[in-house]
Amino acid sequence: MCSLDQHTYARRHLLASCRLFFPEDPIKIVRAQGQYAYDEKERAYLDCINNVAHVGYCHPDVVKAGSDQMALLNINTRFLHDHITHYANRLSETLPPELSTFYFVNSGSEANDLAVRLAQQYTRHQDIVVLENAYHGHLTSLIDISPYKFKSLRPQKEWVHVAPIPDTYRGKYREQHPDPGAAYANEVKAVIDEAEKKNRKVAAFFVESLPSVAGQIIPPAGYFQKVLEHVHDAGAVFVADEIQTGFGRVGKCFWAFQLQGDDFVPDIVTMGKPIGNGHPLSCVATTKEIANVFDATGVEHFNTFGGNPVSCAIGLAVLDVIEKEDLRGNALRVGTYLMSLLNELKAKHPAIGDVRGAGLFIGVELVNDRQERTPAPEVAKNLEEFILISTDGPDRNVIKFKPPMCFTMENAKFVVNKIDKILSGKLGGKENLWGRQLLLFKL
Amino acid sequence: MCSLDQHTYARRHLLASCRLFFPEDPIKIVRAQGQYAYDEKERAYLDCINNVAHVGYCHPDVVKAGSDQMALLNINTRFLHDHITHYANRLSETLPPELSTFYFVNSGSEANDLAVRLAQQYTRHQDIVVLENAYHGHLTSLIDISPYKFKSLRPQKEWVHVAPIPDTYRGKYREQHPDPGAAYANEVKAVIDEAEKKNRKVAAFFVESLPSVAGQIIPPAGYFQKVLEHVHDAGAVFVADEIQTGFGRVGKCFWAFQLQGDDFVPDIVTMGKPIGNGHPLSCVATTKEIANVFDATGVEHFNTFGGNPVSCAIGLAVLDVIEKEDLRGNALRVGTYLMSLLNELKAKHPAIGDVRGAGLFIGVELVNDRQERTPAPEVAKNLEEFILISTDGPDRNVIKFKPPMCFTMENAKFVVNKIDKILSGKLGGKENLWGRQLLLFKL
Repeated sequence: MCSLDQHTYARRHLLASCRLFFPEDPIKIVRAQGQYAYDEKERAYLDCINNVAHVGYCHPDVVKAGSDQMALLNINTRFLHDHITHYANRLSETLPPELSTFYFVNSGSEANDLAVRLAQQYTRHQDIVVLENAYHGHLTSLIDISPYKFKSLRPQKEWVHVAPIPDTYRGKYREQHPDPGAAYANEVKAVIDEAEKKNRKVAAFFVESLPSVAGQIIPPAGYFQKVLEHVHDAGAVFVADEIQTGFGRVGKCFWAFQLQGDDFVPDIVTMGKPIGNGHPLSCVATTKEIANVFDATGVEHFNTFGGNPVSCAIGLAVLDVIEKEDLRGNALRVGTYLMSLLNELKAKHPAIGDVRGAGLFIGVELVNDRQERTPAPEVAKNLEEFILISTDGPDRNVIKFKPPMCFTMENAKFVVNKIDKILSGKLGGKENLWGRQLLLFKL
Repeated sequence: MCSLDQHTYARRHLLASCRLFFPEDPIKIVRAQGQYAYDEKERAYLDCINNVAHVGYCHPDVVKAGSDQMALLNINTRFLHDHITHYANRLSETLPPELSTFYFVNSGSEANDLAVRLAQQYTRHQDIVVLENAYHGHLTSLIDISPYKFKSLRPQKEWVHVAPIPDTYRGKYREQHPDPGAAYANEVKAVIDEAEKKNRKVAAFFVESLPSVAGQIIPPAGYFQKVLEHVHDAGAVFVADEIQTGFGRVGKCFWAFQLQGDDFVPDIVTMGKPIGNGHPLSCVATTKEIANVFDATGVEHFNTFGGNPVSCAIGLAVLDVIEKEDLRGNALRVGTYLMSLLNELKAKHPAIGDVRGAGLFIGVELVNDRQERTPAPEVAKNLEEFILISTDGPDRNVIKFKPPMCFTMENAKFVVNKIDKILSGKLGGKENLWGRQLLLFKL
């Protein structure tokens, strides 16, 4: 999609270890609007996976809010400013009342690093329990607690403990189990007990509210409540990582952890990706109790860029658009429709083993054998090669959907129709697919 | 400056541990332009310390670049985009040719965390040597290597080693020493030797090119070159933290480490604060050799927001303005003039022990006794209380200047005149000072 010269030139200056989409034939996107991105030849790509462009690429309200504030004032939080107060207030309205203290930082990773520090200082414990294949960020402290990252890099730290993923399709306890939520929660308890036998103390259970790179997993009902009990019994706190899943994506509620019911309240919530529609912004919400203990250490928390008026203006505009355009409602309606189309496809194609999701967070698991549920990455790979859709999961056999929230019924139909044709062997060469609209992307 | 209600309201939602300027009477800034910030009553404040608003608050070229790109495209770096390539290329023109690989992230802290990882993976060593009172960021990994932060928090980690600050005014070796650069470099060597005796291996020497919170220190000539020899002998790398000092602030050169001479080339340079004039953006520059080893670990480096086209457009605009408006030249001219006025004041007021600096990075050290050089924080505190100027250093007795780069000769005269009046006891009450222009700020 771009000349070799430009590509070589870019590579010479940019890090080789940042993987491009389609490295042999990388795409150069030059503009984007809504759920569509356009390359330099004005070819349109329908984006099925960019959960950062949450309210749609280049939403005019968000652009205007950012531009206006940039022209007026950008300054740090050592001065009072109304935006940060309003923004914290607006976010608090989406959360249980216990979560009333906010820290604004610049990336999901900065938020998760701060969550680790809050948990450790509040509990005076050190250890962290995470789930298999979890990903919590790219900083030193987060690679240590991300099995998805550390498994290829270094030995697991002695203060990190890994519990089984609560996957009711291919995991240890499946949908026919009488109470998979309790069973998987007991696994977390067992991991905590094991750590305590070694005289270690757990500071936090860290979990993506819906595990993403682990394969678009929907934890079973009651899981979080029961884990919370075990976690609190150990003197630890529960951190819900909403970086991939927050801000109404799941449709039914504003935060994915709320899918587990109103009786569940985590101790810390971290936010990122969609929060600023691409602007570097993130947030940690926690209780007054945890914040006060953190504060009492005497180590001031200050972040040069975090919570500046431009970032907050953008964050506020994103919240406004979600509400004004009823994007949560859209996610619920379009997501439900997309799931129903995918389930029709499942009835037709044995390769589709499972369709799961909530709102516009959807996973389609490809298998070779529906009985054995053996992963079929080669089918997914074929898809990647020909229609360039994105996969996730340890076996990379789960097609994922997490499109901008303005995704339409027509977009859903278009995508499922293409997948149907691929699975039916009716679409052969990649060149056939460079149409006006095309699916994106391998992550 | 704002009603108690608003203040209380803000505090209820925002973290108490973020220290406001003038907590009893916090200032609410509502707009800013150039080197001036304005509160809600349209009172103007001359900003002497905000090195983030580098080319001046709300510079129209930077605002336009950011706004235009926000409206066109914001996307991650898995797609090719010309801005990131051009930006890396432009930055490379300011640096020695060896430093030709760039990583774009979102904050100075993210940059320093990545620098720690690069150093550790390249050398396969773990330990870090830093200077007394150094500050390298707010992340878990960086609090560990920031004596300014960790001293009040936790025991020093066994993999962190602290060398004496090369302060020729109040440190171990002073200006009359025949070669303070070599003497302080030998202290670093001694710290490395001590670590090695314990079978530890040093990965990096981490240093702010001009130590800032440690008291606006100008390291003596030859210090970096000699440290580099010792560091390389130990199989470690030299990380120059330019987060406070880069982008032409020192006037004579683009990077503060270049003040030590063209024969000095660090292995890694980290950038932050001024790089995006307030936009969350930062960068790590390193050698191909270090980047290749990092790449070979197989752990991909990807940052969701880092290097996006909006951030790069803003970074490019900042570089353009520095060049177009000759802000390096201005920093040199105005900084030299400000230093000469401060030296005149020193001749008049015994409380001024030392005036030091480079370009618009200046420190004025207040002492009770010029012979003994005992710090006079109470004088500095008095200044804070009445003219609200910023201090730094472990004893908080060093007045610091690091204003936006458009600071003028008139601004310099105005500020020095106010300091003169304060030191002469001619300015009493704070109320006298809420004029059209007023000094800022306690950091």
